[in-house]
Amino acid sequence: MSAGTARPTAREVRRHKWWGWGQDDVAFRHDNKPAFAPLARDKISLDLATSVPDPDPDLSLLEVPPSGLPEAVREQLASAVGEDNLLLEDEFRVLHSFGRSLPDLVRVRAGGYERLVDAVVYPASEDEIEAVLRIVLDHDLVLIPYGGGSCISGSVTPDPAERRPVITLNMGRLDRVVDIDETAGLARVEAGVYGPDLEEQLQERGWTMGHFPDSFTYSTLGGWAATRSSGMQSDKYGDIEDIVRGLRVVHPRGVISTKAIPGRDSGPSLHELLLGSEGRLGIISECTVQVHRVASVRQVIAYMYPDWEHGIRGMHAIARSEVSPTFTRLSDGPETEFSLAMVKEPTSTKGKVAAKVQDTLFAYLRSKGWQTQGEMCISYVCFEGTKEHVEREKSIVKKIVSRNGGITLGSGPGAIYDQKKFDTPYLRDFLMSHQVFGDVCDTGATWSRINEIHSRVYDAFHAQRREVGKPGFMFCHMSHSYHAGACLYFTFAIPYESEETALEEYYGAKRRVQQAFVDHGSTVSHHHAVGTEHQPWIEEDITSLGADVIRGVFAQNDPGRNLNPGKIVSP
Amino acid sequence: MSAGTARPTAREVRRHKWWGWGQDDVAFRHDNKPAFAPLARDKISLDLATSVPDPDPDLSLLEVPPSGLPEAVREQLASAVGEDNLLLEDEFRVLHSFGRSLPDLVRVRAGGYERLVDAVVYPASEDEIEAVLRIVLDHDLVLIPYGGGSCISGSVTPDPAERRPVITLNMGRLDRVVDIDETAGLARVEAGVYGPDLEEQLQERGWTMGHFPDSFTYSTLGGWAATRSSGMQSDKYGDIEDIVRGLRVVHPRGVISTKAIPGRDSGPSLHELLLGSEGRLGIISECTVQVHRVASVRQVIAYMYPDWEHGIRGMHAIARSEVSPTFTRLSDGPETEFSLAMVKEPTSTKGKVAAKVQDTLFAYLRSKGWQTQGEMCISYVCFEGTKEHVEREKSIVKKIVSRNGGITLGSGPGAIYDQKKFDTPYLRDFLMSHQVFGDVCDTGATWSRINEIHSRVYDAFHAQRREVGKPGFMFCHMSHSYHAGACLYFTFAIPYESEETALEEYYGAKRRVQQAFVDHGSTVSHHHAVGTEHQPWIEEDITSLGADVIRGVFAQNDPGRNLNPGKIVSP
Ligand SMILES: Cc1cc2nc3c(=O)[nH]c(=O)nc-3n(C[C@H](O)[C@H](O)[C@H](O)COP(=O)(O)OP(=O)(O)OC[C@H]3O[C@@H](n4cnc5c(N)ncnc54)[C@H](O)[C@@H]3O)c2cc1C
Ligand SMILES: Cc1cc2nc3c(=O)[nH]c(=O)nc-3n(C[C@H](O)[C@H](O)[C@H](O)COP(=O)(O)OP(=O)(O)OC[C@H]3O[C@@H](n4cnc5c(N)ncnc54)[C@H](O)[C@@H]3O)c2cc1C
Repeated sequence: MSAGTARPTAREVRRHKWWGWGQDDVAFRHDNKPAFAPLARDKISLDLATSVPDPDPDLSLLEVPPSGLPEAVREQLASAVGEDNLLLEDEFRVLHSFGRSLPDLVRVRAGGYERLVDAVVYPASEDEIEAVLRIVLDHDLVLIPYGGGSCISGSVTPDPAERRPVITLNMGRLDRVVDIDETAGLARVEAGVYGPDLEEQLQERGWTMGHFPDSFTYSTLGGWAATRSSGMQSDKYGDIEDIVRGLRVVHPRGVISTKAIPGRDSGPSLHELLLGSEGRLGIISECTVQVHRVASVRQVIAYMYPDWEHGIRGMHAIARSEVSPTFTRLSDGPETEFSLAMVKEPTSTKGKVAAKVQDTLFAYLRSKGWQTQGEMCISYVCFEGTKEHVEREKSIVKKIVSRNGGITLGSGPGAIYDQKKFDTPYLRDFLMSHQVFGDVCDTGATWSRINEIHSRVYDAFHAQRREVGKPGFMFCHMSHSYHAGACLYFTFAIPYESEETALEEYYGAKRRVQQAFVDHGSTVSHHHAVGTEHQPWIEEDITSLGADVIRGVFAQNDPGRNLNPGKIVSP
Repeated sequence: MSAGTARPTAREVRRHKWWGWGQDDVAFRHDNKPAFAPLARDKISLDLATSVPDPDPDLSLLEVPPSGLPEAVREQLASAVGEDNLLLEDEFRVLHSFGRSLPDLVRVRAGGYERLVDAVVYPASEDEIEAVLRIVLDHDLVLIPYGGGSCISGSVTPDPAERRPVITLNMGRLDRVVDIDETAGLARVEAGVYGPDLEEQLQERGWTMGHFPDSFTYSTLGGWAATRSSGMQSDKYGDIEDIVRGLRVVHPRGVISTKAIPGRDSGPSLHELLLGSEGRLGIISECTVQVHRVASVRQVIAYMYPDWEHGIRGMHAIARSEVSPTFTRLSDGPETEFSLAMVKEPTSTKGKVAAKVQDTLFAYLRSKGWQTQGEMCISYVCFEGTKEHVEREKSIVKKIVSRNGGITLGSGPGAIYDQKKFDTPYLRDFLMSHQVFGDVCDTGATWSRINEIHSRVYDAFHAQRREVGKPGFMFCHMSHSYHAGACLYFTFAIPYESEETALEEYYGAKRRVQQAFVDHGSTVSHHHAVGTEHQPWIEEDITSLGADVIRGVFAQNDPGRNLNPGKIVSP
């Protein structure tokens, strides 16, 4: 603790692995999941019995270029935030120079860094943010705001060609729920707070914000707002644009605040200009967010459909019905197969009985003509509210599912989904240690095109795999349901040849998928932001004139290009 | 009809009175509403038995300055849209130079016009809009897009100081529903369509957009999008920002389109920048909007609460409950008194019986201590859906109302409300002919401040009336309910002294109300746009730096200030 304050200093602020996901002592293991290794062999020719994993990377073996921070600037920054809260050490500079996209992970592990940030500062107040921004503008530096660093679009990485010193502003010390207006259901919250910390502070008082992206454990409120994030419960609680009602933003010319009151901004929405701005228009210091009483009953129910088309018909019927679930999700055939392969070997008697029941059920479904491997689709629907409300909605959904050819499995598999939902990111690091890339691409599609996009993306991916003569496994789920459509979320795994060609091999597959999205009329991304990774498609997404309008907004507000330059639109 | 087309020419396009609301042959009458005259006498000292109404204004008695359109421009415009669709006649130029705000009505009736638009053009396609905009930019003219002209914020009126020729672009010929994607529930609609025409085209095919502002009959889809309009059914269908998912906009540098797919824009929202832009960033030519199947059952139920505080408690409880009504509305004591005075004298036996029943009920309520005049509050809640859904929601709301001290009146008064909802604008013209101003102010307030704002606005209004020593009647309702709060909608009536001082007298009251909104933490307007009327408060609303950011957006996109200059923010 630094003197005179009860808040942790920068060195104590929780942080994750510099080379991968999450905490040092947590990793994916497959030895307790008997179906995993066979699936890996079958789909991506990975033989886990013989493959030797790379050891965890060791930073001391890599060359790290020194910080280029001029001494005069160092002194001013230190006096703005305190010596303790200005970090120049290699590990911090490496950690803050990359997000958590697959190319980021490749680059951070490879070393030979082209460009790292020169310093990391941890402000503790809006005043300190203003002081840091003043220094940045006075000295013509570059400032990159940083929440959890979980972005997968290159948004926290400095431009390799950047010649000016680059400062990362880590928001981690701004982590308090300042105030809850319990009548309005609005909470003022500092922007640097991590997901679990935020929910803990709220739930202590009986409230929840209801925003749970898969990256929840290592991402922040300000990062969510700056990237237009979506949580898995968006059907009920909304996307972050719906949740964040007011913002305070430290802008190059002062502080902007948007009022958290019903009725949107007058005129063009200033608020919606700041949301999604990825640090280019200023630093979000505080958000006023909608909060809800924690529901008294919460249940996740699993259903099974014979195939994707039946499943989508069911999902669409639920979206059009009079029920209002917290989330609705449908895994396609391959994803269902994958999920079943991720189930741990039962050890308890209860678990063994459940596995037997499942075997019997699947045998019965096969006897009725279902393809239980690779075709049938598992679906999860979450219900929250009073007991009476949950029971009624469950019974309506059960009928809808059955009318669309599906069956209700019950709450057992649902509960497993709910507990395990934040674990999958660790799998990516595991696969990479076996020379396999696992990555995701997501898109927003209308109900009328959702099936077409689903097949076209598979076609594009498998055509690419055939062209390069390599295996590849893809699976998909539908989530985040809206009036007009939903999000399709594709995961793919591809073995790669060598460190040298790794990124090229990766982009070969990834770019084909993204291109299929825009070619078939869906968005370049549903909630994975733009950064630099999705920039090649921004003009197809919002027209090149539209991109030009956004470019003009950045030029007008940050004429010196000091705020996270190069993100969203170039230059 | 013009040759070779089945669409009406400009001269046939439906239009309203140049000096007031609606059609020439419709007007408010009070002779069949026995309680109206006594209320007018009591509240605003208007004696309808002796007051002689001004005759309807006669344009031939007013002096109308000639059009300043240069001949070269006239020729180009005529060749762009056809001679028939370029209008220079006085009545058209007067009609298009004013919206329908109270100051507009005062000015349009007074004559002695400072500045009228010089020409009105009616394009029939996006290409024609582009051609007109090209002419405007080439000759450095001013262009004002025009939908229904129903705005009450000065948004369609040229700047009196404008020296360049001013062209109004009337969108009325672009009135088709182009296409309905019945799977996604999305319709592509041309922007110039009036409310009733739009709903007719949709409902013919079993769909509705569900957007019903009070100005519905004389306002357009493009105007709604350009002003961030809210309809009375926003609880269920959303405000126009939620309904309009995609836009096509003719911008000075080309056409921008935003995709109507789930998942908001990548980066800062271009879409939300164009919404609410009041013609300053371009002309909205087409909107893709969410449409819904017309509900099989629709019922409006009326309730009565003993006073405002009980009513608000009930409204808030409904907003927090698990029901999802189409609208919820609460009139305060004075508005309830006004509504009851607007009821027609019953002529049928059924009507007479109902009136008797009402008298008996009110007597009973008085016996229980209710103040039935000026204090008790009527509330309307609208339910839509399947019969089962409507019945269940009605029964839940009934319980909530009763727990909050209210009683259920039933569907009789609700049905009357539903039929009469678009009639009140005619009352304003009637009052003005008796030297009384009737006007409205609306604001968005959180649930935690809604009662305070309600009383502070009354205080501010009555203090102003005392200061000037004149009577004034104010009433209010709550509508448009959100998670965090709702809209308060105030109506006021004040007699004015003379034509000369009319505007000054009006602004004396109106500005005091607006100032009370921002002083007590609510928005300058909930859905009445900014234009020039609300500009004095825009900086208090979005901070002066925020207003500067918006100013920069206009400067960047319309550097010549050719598009509706001076609206929203000055210059
Ligand atoms: C395994 C995994 C799963 C994911 N799942 C989801 C998901 O389900 N839903 C989803 O939406 N996203 C998901 N993401 C993407 C990512 O988590 C989101 O983009 C998230 O919103 C980033 O938050 P962060 O705090 O980590 O921001 P960072 O990564 O630190 O920053 C992201 C961008 O926001 C800017 N920024 C951060 N904080 C501020 C601030 N206070 N003011 C101004 N700008 C700021 C940064 O400059 C940068 O441009 C996932 C990522 C991973 C690796
Ligand atoms: C009696 C009365 C009741 C009202 N009730 C409501 C209500 O319940 N809810 C509500 O929201 N409003 C209400 N209003 C205000 C008004 O009806 C709205 O602002 C409406 O959205 C204006 O639509 P319009 O088509 O008449 O637009 P106009 O008045 O013609 O134009 C308004 C603004 O939009 C611009 N514009 C119009 N069309 C386009 C286009 N195609 N492209 C670009 N810019 C365009 C104009 O330049 C102008 O700046 C009411 C007004 C009156 C007089």
